[in-house]
Amino acid sequence: MGLLGCGTVGGGVLHLLRANAAYLEARVGAPFEVVRVLVRDPEKERVKELERSRLTTNPDDVLGDPSIDVIVEVMGGVDPARDYLGRAIASGKQIVTANKMLLALHGAELLDRARSRGVDVAFEGAVGGGIPVIRVLRDALAGDTIASLSGIINGTSNYILTRMQSDGLSFEDALKEAQQKGFAEADPTLDVDGGDAAHKLVVLSMLAFGARLDGVSVLTEGIRGVEPVDHAFAERFGFVVKQLAIAKERGDELELRVHPALVAKDAPLANISGVLNAISVEGRALGPCLLSGRGAGDLPTAVSVVADLVDVAIAKKGGTAGQSTRAIRLAERKLSPTAEVEARYYFRFTVFDRPGVLARITGALGERGVSIEQMVQQGRGSADVPVDVVILTHESKEAAVQAALATIAKSDYVAKPPRMIRVH
Amino acid sequence: MGLLGCGTVGGGVLHLLRANAAYLEARVGAPFEVVRVLVRDPEKERVKELERSRLTTNPDDVLGDPSIDVIVEVMGGVDPARDYLGRAIASGKQIVTANKMLLALHGAELLDRARSRGVDVAFEGAVGGGIPVIRVLRDALAGDTIASLSGIINGTSNYILTRMQSDGLSFEDALKEAQQKGFAEADPTLDVDGGDAAHKLVVLSMLAFGARLDGVSVLTEGIRGVEPVDHAFAERFGFVVKQLAIAKERGDELELRVHPALVAKDAPLANISGVLNAISVEGRALGPCLLSGRGAGDLPTAVSVVADLVDVAIAKKGGTAGQSTRAIRLAERKLSPTAEVEARYYFRFTVFDRPGVLARITGALGERGVSIEQMVQQGRGSADVPVDVVILTHESKEAAVQAALATIAKSDYVAKPPRMIRVH
Repeated sequence: MGLLGCGTVGGGVLHLLRANAAYLEARVGAPFEVVRVLVRDPEKERVKELERSRLTTNPDDVLGDPSIDVIVEVMGGVDPARDYLGRAIASGKQIVTANKMLLALHGAELLDRARSRGVDVAFEGAVGGGIPVIRVLRDALAGDTIASLSGIINGTSNYILTRMQSDGLSFEDALKEAQQKGFAEADPTLDVDGGDAAHKLVVLSMLAFGARLDGVSVLTEGIRGVEPVDHAFAERFGFVVKQLAIAKERGDELELRVHPALVAKDAPLANISGVLNAISVEGRALGPCLLSGRGAGDLPTAVSVVADLVDVAIAKKGGTAGQSTRAIRLAERKLSPTAEVEARYYFRFTVFDRPGVLARITGALGERGVSIEQMVQQGRGSADVPVDVVILTHESKEAAVQAALATIAKSDYVAKPPRMIRVH
Repeated sequence: MGLLGCGTVGGGVLHLLRANAAYLEARVGAPFEVVRVLVRDPEKERVKELERSRLTTNPDDVLGDPSIDVIVEVMGGVDPARDYLGRAIASGKQIVTANKMLLALHGAELLDRARSRGVDVAFEGAVGGGIPVIRVLRDALAGDTIASLSGIINGTSNYILTRMQSDGLSFEDALKEAQQKGFAEADPTLDVDGGDAAHKLVVLSMLAFGARLDGVSVLTEGIRGVEPVDHAFAERFGFVVKQLAIAKERGDELELRVHPALVAKDAPLANISGVLNAISVEGRALGPCLLSGRGAGDLPTAVSVVADLVDVAIAKKGGTAGQSTRAIRLAERKLSPTAEVEARYYFRFTVFDRPGVLARITGALGERGVSIEQMVQQGRGSADVPVDVVILTHESKEAAVQAALATIAKSDYVAKPPRMIRVH
C-alpha cells in the first residue's frame, strides 16, 4: 500500500492499521504493509507509526513502485491528486480516496478509467466522515431506486448554525469559536459558503442517481447571510435553520442544491446538532432511511478509508478487483434549472414602517403568484426606524419568488436587501 | 434462485426483482430467475409476479433442484427452516435469509457450516428491515471495534409506546390500535414481551462483537408493565420511555439486555417515533453512528433481501462465494450476569400515605447503597388511598436495586408491586 498525503486523515489511517493489525490481517488473509508515504516535508510530519525511510517527497517513489498495489489518496485538492490517481490507475493499482473535490469535478472520469483498467476506486471517506453512506447507496440499496436525498454534510456550518440557534451567537462569533475549537479552518470559505457541501452532494448524487455529474454547477448558497433574528423567527414558526444539501429526481432531470433551509423542529435533520452530519435517503421501496454520525475528524474518516482498504484488498486477493467499481453505472442526466425549484419560502424584509408598506409587499408577491401563508411584523418601527416583516409563503416557484424579491428590493421603503430562506 | 416462503416479504422480493429486473441484470451480469417457490398452499397464495407452475409445497423441489444456486429463506421460525438451510448449504447453495429467530438460536452454527462449505449466508433482512445495519457492522466498520450498540428494533413496541406517550393511551388501547393498523400481530407476545428484539439483538451482537451467541439467554423485559403515568413522570424528568435493545462490552464479557428504558428527550433515539427503527453504534474510532428507517414491512425488508441477493450473485459469478461469510469471525464470549448491570434507575412505588413511609423507602434503598437523585410524590394520598412516589437514582448496581425492591415490595405500606425502569 502507498499513501499519498499524511495529514490528520492519513495519520488516522496509519494508526488504525497498526491498532487493528491482527484483526485486519485475519480478515484479509494478508497483512497491510505501508510501503511508501508521500509527504510534503519529511522533517515536519510526525508520523509515529512509521519509520522515516518510508517517507518520500517524490510521487514517483510511490506511483512507480511495482510492489504497491493499492494507493490511498488523502492529500485532497484536484491538482496534483488527479494526475497521481490517473497514473496509478493506468498502472493497475487499486484506489482508495477521500477526495471529495476531485470526485465532484472528475469522479465519472476516474471511474471510467478504473472500469476500463479493471481496478477499483473506493471513496467511502469522501462524504460524511465515518458515516457509511457511500456503501449504503452503492450496495445496500441495489434493489431500490432513490427518489431524493437530503443531508447536513458540512459539520462546520452545522456547528455555527447550532451555536447561533442555541445561544444567540452572531455568525462572526460562532465562526470564531469554531475556529478556536478546530472545527473551522483559518479560511472558512469552502465550508461556510457551501462549496464543500456542494462537492459532497455531487458525489452522493452520482451514486444515488447513477448520474455523470463531473463539474456540474450546483445552486450553492452559504450561511453568512443568516442572522440570529432569522433563528428566532424560524423558532417562532416551528422550524430551525439548517444548512442542507438536497438532491431529487424531477422527471428525467435532477435538482441539486445547497443552501440554508427551514427544517420543521420535529424532523430528524432538525435534531442533528454541532459537528454531526446526517444524510436522509428516500428510497422508492425502502422509504426514508437516516444515517448520522461524526462527519469529519481524523479517526471517523480513517475508519471509512480502512473499510475501503479491506474491501479492495479482499477483491484483489479474490481476483475480483474492479467489480465494485463496474457496478457503478453512470448515465448523462440533466440538472433542472434553479428557476424551477418549488418550495415554501421564508422572507424577511427590513422596511421603514410607512403607511401602505405591507400592501406594497403583499402586492408585489401577489402579482407574481406568490401566495402568503403567514406574516409577522415584530414590534413597530417608524418612517425612519426600520422594522422586520417576516413572511412564510405557500409552495411557490423560485422564478416567481426571485422576480418578486427583485421588485421589492428596489423599492424605497426597503432598508436593506430582503433575506430569503427556502423551507425544506 | 429458489424461494422458501412467500408471505409479505417474499412477495416484496418478487416484486422488486421484476420492477428492477433490467438494472439488476446489468449489475450482476445475469438475470435473476426465480426457479421454484415453496408455499404452504398454492391455492391460497396470490403471487401475481409468478406463474402457478413455479409454486410447490414440496421442499425437495426447491432444495433438490441442481439448477438453483441461491436459496432465499423468508418463511421464518426455526423448524423446518433450520433443516432446509442446512441441506441447502450442504449442497453448496448460497443462502439469503431474513430469519432472525433462526439466526439468534443457530446463527453461529449456520455460519460455521457455510464457512466450511465455502458458501455465503447473507442476512441483512433479519434486523431492522430496510436499515442496512448488518452490512455496516460487517463491512463499513471493518477497521474499527465496537464498544456498544443500542437500538429501537421492534416497531410494534415503539408504536405502542409512542401512542401512549403522545396521546396518553393505555397499553391495551395502543395495542388494539396497532393491531387494527396491521402493526401488531393477533398474538403480539413476541413483539411486546421483547422476544423479537432479543433475537435481533443477538444477531447484531454476533456481528458487532464477533461472538458466538447461539441461544444465549438475554435479559428480556417487555412493555406490558409501562403505564401512562410512567410516561408522564418520565416527561417531567426530561425523558421518554422507549423499548431498547442494548449490547456493550464489559471487559471480556458482553452485556445484552432488552427492556423499557428512560431515554433523555434530546438523545437521537428519543425522537424515533411510531414504527420506525433505529440503531446507534458506538465505534471506538468512529464515535457514535445512528441508522434509522422503516424496521419492517414487505418492501423495506425486501430491499435488504435483494441487496443480499445481488451480493451473493456477484460473489458467486466472480468465484468468491463464501468470502463475505468467512470474514465473519466468531469467538466464544461470556455474557455478564444481569446482577452486574449498572445504570440509573426509575422507581415508581404505589404506597399508602402513612407517616414514615418515605423514610422506610429511602431507608431500604440506602441500606443497599442505592442512592437517590430525585424524588417526587404526586399529590396526597391517605392511609387508605395509595399515591405514587417516584424516585430517580444515581448510578447503581442491579443486584442492589433488586434486593432493595424485594424488601420494599414485601412491606405493608405498598399497594402494588413497585415499577422499575432503567435509565439509558
